[in-house]
Amino acid sequence: MVQIDAETPKAQDRRAEILRRAAAVFREKGFHGAGMREIATGLGLAPGALYYYFESKEELLYACQDISLTRLIQGARTILKSDHPADEQLRALIAAHIDLTLDELGGSAAHVEFHALPPDRLAEIVKKRDTYERLIRRVIRRGIKDGTFRKTDVKLATMALLGALNWSVVWWSPEGRWSPPDLVRGFADVFVSGLKESA
Amino acid sequence: MVQIDAETPKAQDRRAEILRRAAAVFREKGFHGAGMREIATGLGLAPGALYYYFESKEELLYACQDISLTRLIQGARTILKSDHPADEQLRALIAAHIDLTLDELGGSAAHVEFHALPPDRLAEIVKKRDTYERLIRRVIRRGIKDGTFRKTDVKLATMALLGALNWSVVWWSPEGRWSPPDLVRGFADVFVSGLKESA
Repeated sequence: MVQIDAETPKAQDRRAEILRRAAAVFREKGFHGAGMREIATGLGLAPGALYYYFESKEELLYACQDISLTRLIQGARTILKSDHPADEQLRALIAAHIDLTLDELGGSAAHVEFHALPPDRLAEIVKKRDTYERLIRRVIRRGIKDGTFRKTDVKLATMALLGALNWSVVWWSPEGRWSPPDLVRGFADVFVSGLKESA
Repeated sequence: MVQIDAETPKAQDRRAEILRRAAAVFREKGFHGAGMREIATGLGLAPGALYYYFESKEELLYACQDISLTRLIQGARTILKSDHPADEQLRALIAAHIDLTLDELGGSAAHVEFHALPPDRLAEIVKKRDTYERLIRRVIRRGIKDGTFRKTDVKLATMALLGALNWSVVWWSPEGRWSPPDLVRGFADVFVSGLKESA
């Protein structure tokens, strides 16, 4: 990948624009069905110009996943720093996740195409995924500790929640019946209300 | 695909054996990383012999998904016919799903690689997926009606559950910390206990 530090703001904007477009094409065609030429054309770029920014489709996919995970982690850290109770924090985590993956990235399945990454890139993504999972677990664990949530297997509850969230990029469509806020409400009802200690 | 009706029991066994092997290779390498040659070799078959049973890797993938969905639907129908209460039925649905996808199919992600299917095959799979979803929704709806479950968005609760179940083929590993029954317990705690009307 080209050096980010040395890039001008304009080049950074261009990279961001490319990633948005790539995410849209990945969403529509799947990673394997998407072509670099198609991504370039949609941006009015020659394919060669696209390769200047990202040396391969794998690098584009990696950048998509890396950026979204970095932002999910940042969002989760901010939420965890707040002094809101665990149920509100968990609801905020769900909202931030849906907001980023469905609303902003348009439900790109790029986020969940792991097999397509080269092993070293996959290892970096897995590390970030682990970090993100740990932050979610921390909220649930805190809620159990202070009596907000009932006792449950924290890791499996986290994986169930992440499953629901990640799977939504597979089935959700912007043209469908549910808006991203509808999903937040529905999932929060299952995972936040569902984990609450009944009074 | 070759005609199933005309096949001898031995040929049917061979097809089942091929599908198990294909599911294992898809699990390990992802659909796009898996090779027909590799699937054949693992069975002691010449690649040409494999093509006698399945004319393409896409047909193999379709058959994997078709068979597992058919069995999920059959299982769900049996569970729905029982006179058990909705919470027990939902738990049984979770157990049957985990049992098939993780225990029997070894957590093959083939089940969730939809983009790789040709459009006509995808349409058939989507139809079966819809049927399966409807059966799960019916159990949740029944539970809400008879007061077993609290009121919730039935469709979104179903998608959350299916997300957790389908996502488990991505993260779960037979060598990991959790057995399939552990997952059933954990997910049932989130989705069955979580949906229960508190007394």
